[in-house]
Amino acid sequence: MTALAAPPRRWRTSPNLAINEMVARRRAAGEQIVHLGFGEARLPASEPLLRRLVDGAGRNTYGPVAGTPELRAAVAGYFGRRRLATDPEQVVAGPGSKPLLMALNLVLPGDVLLPRPCWNSYAPQAALAGKRAFGVPIPAECGGVPDPDGLRRAIQAARAGGGDPRTLVLTVPDNPTGTVAPPALIRRLCAIAEEEDLLLISDEIYRDLVHDPHTTPVLSPAEVLPERTVIATGLSKSLALGGWRIGVIRVPAGPRGEQLRDGVVSVASEVWSSLAGPMQEVAAYAYGEPPEIRDRLHTCARLHGALARAVHGLLVRAGAECRPPTAGFYVYPDFAPMRATLARRGVTDSASLQRFLLDEAGIAVLGGAQLGDDPAALRFKAATSTLYGETRNEQEAALAAADPAALPHIATVLNRIEAGLDRLCAGGIR
Amino acid sequence: MTALAAPPRRWRTSPNLAINEMVARRRAAGEQIVHLGFGEARLPASEPLLRRLVDGAGRNTYGPVAGTPELRAAVAGYFGRRRLATDPEQVVAGPGSKPLLMALNLVLPGDVLLPRPCWNSYAPQAALAGKRAFGVPIPAECGGVPDPDGLRRAIQAARAGGGDPRTLVLTVPDNPTGTVAPPALIRRLCAIAEEEDLLLISDEIYRDLVHDPHTTPVLSPAEVLPERTVIATGLSKSLALGGWRIGVIRVPAGPRGEQLRDGVVSVASEVWSSLAGPMQEVAAYAYGEPPEIRDRLHTCARLHGALARAVHGLLVRAGAECRPPTAGFYVYPDFAPMRATLARRGVTDSASLQRFLLDEAGIAVLGGAQLGDDPAALRFKAATSTLYGETRNEQEAALAAADPAALPHIATVLNRIEAGLDRLCAGGIR
Repeated sequence: MTALAAPPRRWRTSPNLAINEMVARRRAAGEQIVHLGFGEARLPASEPLLRRLVDGAGRNTYGPVAGTPELRAAVAGYFGRRRLATDPEQVVAGPGSKPLLMALNLVLPGDVLLPRPCWNSYAPQAALAGKRAFGVPIPAECGGVPDPDGLRRAIQAARAGGGDPRTLVLTVPDNPTGTVAPPALIRRLCAIAEEEDLLLISDEIYRDLVHDPHTTPVLSPAEVLPERTVIATGLSKSLALGGWRIGVIRVPAGPRGEQLRDGVVSVASEVWSSLAGPMQEVAAYAYGEPPEIRDRLHTCARLHGALARAVHGLLVRAGAECRPPTAGFYVYPDFAPMRATLARRGVTDSASLQRFLLDEAGIAVLGGAQLGDDPAALRFKAATSTLYGETRNEQEAALAAADPAALPHIATVLNRIEAGLDRLCAGGIR
Repeated sequence: MTALAAPPRRWRTSPNLAINEMVARRRAAGEQIVHLGFGEARLPASEPLLRRLVDGAGRNTYGPVAGTPELRAAVAGYFGRRRLATDPEQVVAGPGSKPLLMALNLVLPGDVLLPRPCWNSYAPQAALAGKRAFGVPIPAECGGVPDPDGLRRAIQAARAGGGDPRTLVLTVPDNPTGTVAPPALIRRLCAIAEEEDLLLISDEIYRDLVHDPHTTPVLSPAEVLPERTVIATGLSKSLALGGWRIGVIRVPAGPRGEQLRDGVVSVASEVWSSLAGPMQEVAAYAYGEPPEIRDRLHTCARLHGALARAVHGLLVRAGAECRPPTAGFYVYPDFAPMRATLARRGVTDSASLQRFLLDEAGIAVLGGAQLGDDPAALRFKAATSTLYGETRNEQEAALAAADPAALPHIATVLNRIEAGLDRLCAGGIR
């Protein structure tokens, strides 16, 4: 029997990408849709990045599978500036962090523990690799990590049911909640991981988009458990380069890390050969973090924070509970307090909530069920990074604005969100 | 148990990429090595292609998973000009044909039949997807396809041993033999595939590099069995864009093809999102085949043919048997007639032959065992496309030359190959 003789479900496009294509089609047909359904930093590539891509255009030969020495050295420096001394041999680059995460799934033994909710590709990747994925609810204060007590219970239950959980995925900062697990919580989870002999995959692709680094400390699990933590990251979110497909992983130092690296490089060499040459040039430059890149990261993080907070405010005023966003460009509201009101509109679960917002309010969101969350819960993910405007000029104006939410082209959309939420919640009391 | 609880072998980099990196290291350390070990069309990206990459640099947002409508329409046109009417919905683009082939492995049920020898990533990909791969010897006249009688026997033997062969991979034109299976043979194999209910994956990435299309007809299995043939191709070989990572597949029309397409798009959406935006722009342009692209393909094919024939001549004069190359840039000699002579030098199999050529003659090749061939056979793959020169100027001169083998920088290397083969075979008689 092959790994996929019994596929886990009918084949479907990953829901975030599917929503993005659906919105593009409906907009092309003339519909007005507020697109909060896709986690894309909708900002231009900065001029220095464009120049590097042009400079690298001549790299049309196959490069080293793991990345050029320049690129891996730059990434090692990047981690070094984040309290993680790194040898370039610990770095593997690829066409996005996604294929690197898939390679890890193919290389690592055992099943996978996931926070619940979490990014919508972790579980399907595990299934493609023939693994079982066990979801563990997140705490009340933040997402991206399981509640510690829930984690212990989930491991026991998984083992009792014949599962073999060996890997725990953490998302720090988190997609979908836009929050950062506090250091003390990271340490508690690391202690459990050590006791239970788990490998940690820390997805830190939003790491450089903390809205206010002074008030929101980030502790990577790799600082606590260096020998059993793999970090995945990339430039899709921080520098808005989703369409350029650039990702990297950092494996532990030492024999365990080397074995993992060899496994990932082996899979890479059979499945995608290498990151495209021009992109290697871009990545080597960006991970070197010259001043203009550091400035850009800072400016982007500020903008993301402003709009995430603005939408968070609208959601809370409409009656939802919602963790305040502190990183990235997502909010993850829970309309449980409004359940009775929503039920009068036929909205009783994640799916009907997503559908009502699209059909009745012209707002595309990703229902929590798509992220592994309880389908009965009235939760969704809203990406606020698609509000910056449709043109390069609008987006650059948003980046430059002291109060981007007040820009007319953004205020208009925020008003439409407010009106849509009013249609959902009007007449209800919390 | 996960799909990989028992990995099929220790993790290693795919041997062609590993050799390429080894040669780069040894050259960097000052060694002179004739590099025939890597199947790269070592030619510059043409100016029009470079311009398109620059034009597409601003595409930094996530595009459609299967490729932009413009790209898919261009690819449909490309196949249409090759006697295969194609709807854009039948096309999926990706970062190289390799990940698309891997996605097919993950989506398709059952085990895989491969020609023996064949490209070195088919079998590892099948193993990563939890499949068994059954090699079937190629005929005497050409590679890339199994001998028909051998195929029937292999299917029976596989089934008797508990295997479930459901897919047959053909490489037309072939890597590693540089030959094209004749149409009559393709038709015989298609008849068997229909009788045995096999799906065909036809890897046609060398299709546009037939040295003389007037004397070497190419019949795609998709023309014979349209409803059960998937074609994989890309721009890495034909336009020397290996480092840009651009590939496409064409699935059958109709429900079976749609299901396959949905499967591949689903895997793509979870594993790599999409082909990078700038590369989509390049690919849409190239598959449109304006005159300058058609000219480039023609010029490249002519150069590949000249050098493949030159190296073929050296091998045959040294005493090897070798199918005359008619497409692509490989030759696949068999030194069986020289076995006694080679044995006196300690060369008794594929591995010692590869080692002798590297250590004693400074020539890097890929031993046949790396391609699934009998390890005891004295066969290797030599890529002749790395002889065109190290600089853009040398490579363009090779493209422009009426007799590229006579160019001093190429003649010098051919002489070194001749001397190396002499060291291997001197004193022997065939």
